[in-house]
Amino acid sequence: MPEQILDDISHRRYNPLRGTWLLVSPHRTKRPWQGQQESASKITLPDYDPACYLCPGNKRAQGDTNPKYTNTFVFVNDYSAVKEDQAEYKPEENTKDLSSLLLRAESVTGKCYVLTFAPNHNLTLADLSPKEILPVVQAWTEIYKAHLSPDSPLAKVSLPTKLEPIGLSLAAPNAQYRWMQIFENKGAAMGCSNPHPHGQVWTSTGLPDEAAQELVQQKKYRHEHGGCSLLGDYAKLEMEKEERIVFQNATFLVVCPWWATWPFEVMIISKQHKRALVDFDDEEKQDFAEAIAEVTRRYDNLFETSFPYSSGIHQAPLEGTDEEIEASHFHMHFYPPLLRSATVRKFLVGYELMAEPQRDITPEQAAARLRDCGGTLYRKLLQ
Amino acid sequence: MPEQILDDISHRRYNPLRGTWLLVSPHRTKRPWQGQQESASKITLPDYDPACYLCPGNKRAQGDTNPKYTNTFVFVNDYSAVKEDQAEYKPEENTKDLSSLLLRAESVTGKCYVLTFAPNHNLTLADLSPKEILPVVQAWTEIYKAHLSPDSPLAKVSLPTKLEPIGLSLAAPNAQYRWMQIFENKGAAMGCSNPHPHGQVWTSTGLPDEAAQELVQQKKYRHEHGGCSLLGDYAKLEMEKEERIVFQNATFLVVCPWWATWPFEVMIISKQHKRALVDFDDEEKQDFAEAIAEVTRRYDNLFETSFPYSSGIHQAPLEGTDEEIEASHFHMHFYPPLLRSATVRKFLVGYELMAEPQRDITPEQAAARLRDCGGTLYRKLLQ
Ligand SMILES: [Zn+2]
Ligand SMILES: [Zn+2]
Repeated sequence: MPEQILDDISHRRYNPLRGTWLLVSPHRTKRPWQGQQESASKITLPDYDPACYLCPGNKRAQGDTNPKYTNTFVFVNDYSAVKEDQAEYKPEENTKDLSSLLLRAESVTGKCYVLTFAPNHNLTLADLSPKEILPVVQAWTEIYKAHLSPDSPLAKVSLPTKLEPIGLSLAAPNAQYRWMQIFENKGAAMGCSNPHPHGQVWTSTGLPDEAAQELVQQKKYRHEHGGCSLLGDYAKLEMEKEERIVFQNATFLVVCPWWATWPFEVMIISKQHKRALVDFDDEEKQDFAEAIAEVTRRYDNLFETSFPYSSGIHQAPLEGTDEEIEASHFHMHFYPPLLRSATVRKFLVGYELMAEPQRDITPEQAAARLRDCGGTLYRKLLQ
Repeated sequence: MPEQILDDISHRRYNPLRGTWLLVSPHRTKRPWQGQQESASKITLPDYDPACYLCPGNKRAQGDTNPKYTNTFVFVNDYSAVKEDQAEYKPEENTKDLSSLLLRAESVTGKCYVLTFAPNHNLTLADLSPKEILPVVQAWTEIYKAHLSPDSPLAKVSLPTKLEPIGLSLAAPNAQYRWMQIFENKGAAMGCSNPHPHGQVWTSTGLPDEAAQELVQQKKYRHEHGGCSLLGDYAKLEMEKEERIVFQNATFLVVCPWWATWPFEVMIISKQHKRALVDFDDEEKQDFAEAIAEVTRRYDNLFETSFPYSSGIHQAPLEGTDEEIEASHFHMHFYPPLLRSATVRKFLVGYELMAEPQRDITPEQAAARLRDCGGTLYRKLLQ
């Protein structure tokens, strides 16, 4: 890369998507290697666990029984972080009062769903083929579509499809929500207690901070660059540079972003300007499923372990101004904590909490390692 | 509290110090208690460990030998995240070029120190009396003073003192740095591998993001409120409300802030407007040592365990505009991950990384529990 020197000196990199900085200390990777070397592990979980609240046909905490589903299945979280209905909170607004200035709160309602990725208790996205991930992408699309504001230009998008609909049985939400956060926590290192492959979908009346921050930056860029998309321009640049690419297909680019905080952080970016899941046709959805399969398999191959991460999709808000919707560029983040092996992880603590995020290996080094991790899932070779 | 209803409904709270929001879901604390109940543990570490690179008289990685220190001792980190000297990086500035816009980096130099809190391998701040913590506060003050820009109004502050100077042997830094981050990572849960009580001090040419964000908010508040301090006003308000106070003495207020992200997060705030450590006289330094002792002892008593946390001091930048220095209000953050017991922790993952931080128990509930945890350190009663 032209900035070869950045491989050796400590420097800060700018994240234009959040408008924040991070500290990179590549010279620290020359420290003596003290991390443990773990041996490859086989997954020994059963295909079906009678005690799992996500396996087909099982009973859940509140007494409901899961259907005998064959690919994916959605239900309202029994312990939702936000509820559809609750008592009202209307604080008196008095801008002269210190309380209204420094003790500000606003009520939030919303709905939280759980979405399984497969009926098998012992599989993960890394074990699934793109074809098997496609129904998950379809389910995400259906759930997003079902919550879109009728006033959004996205509500009118109707692409021809040959895919059989997933046909989620979703009760209509009680209110129009502003944001939908689709995400997955995978692995005990990410606080996930159930290995059954699943993700979550939280919708809420407020626009969460991270989404709001990215929207501000995307709107600003679009305004200052004649309507161009920040992430569209970024994807173009990365395809020219070829320094941080992990994988690509016709629709998606997978990169370790220039500003990655987590050691092996990646971002799946739509090459064209797509605002949300409903903007993708059948083939593009398949390409998205392939990109997810490529990321998760490479992660598992990297340290020959079931790689923990949090992932999430950022797209247009369910309800927003035309400007907000048009400035949104579809992408998916993967934030994995592992650093050197199945047991040596990065902690976001101390300096990162008090001052700013810090990393040792560069995103270029991380991308090179993930590029080399393609091929068969390591577990399949152990069998 | 007047906002009793916030005990039952999900809501967002605003953090005026960062200009960000967080999601509070107090109804989730009504979930069945599934956390483990741990029994009280005694610390069984030796007072001196011949293999510890922080114990008095021991050799460190790079061959230096620690002095036989009696309270605190400072040295330059053998694996610093930033270095004093490195090759130069001067990217060509070309604002029309996508690279200069989307692949931005800047060089950072600085110096990283390690500072021990006690010669004893098996003590923590929670075990120390305010009188024993005072030398740590003095050492922090000396190190801050030694790095201050000679142009800063803070460099001229010289309060009468009766305390014996710590007399750190610090080589003068090669450059004028902009920011000093004093912090501690305590416990394996925070990635800290050495139990010997110690903290770190990183100085750097850049103003880190978190510090920059708080400075922007403090300057804005000061400007909009006739020169008042955001945290000064906030401390006054909390003393009136008496809902989130954990402890106070003449100089400091300890609260679970209205906008706390971590379950038992606390902030030590100077009641008066103090800009930095050098603004405190002897008595105020003792009060600060007492506040630290009160926080850390209560933490350990809460779940009868050595409580992990990251803590850090935010004060005026080493070098800055008069406006930046005057807007800075001295405070210390404690971010502890434990939620329900010694082993049940909160993870900042998934929704918090993709959307916004979320908590279940309210800061008011957390403050009430910490208020009740005063008294003798639980370990001393086991002996
Ligand atoms: Zn994003
Ligand atoms: Zn602060």
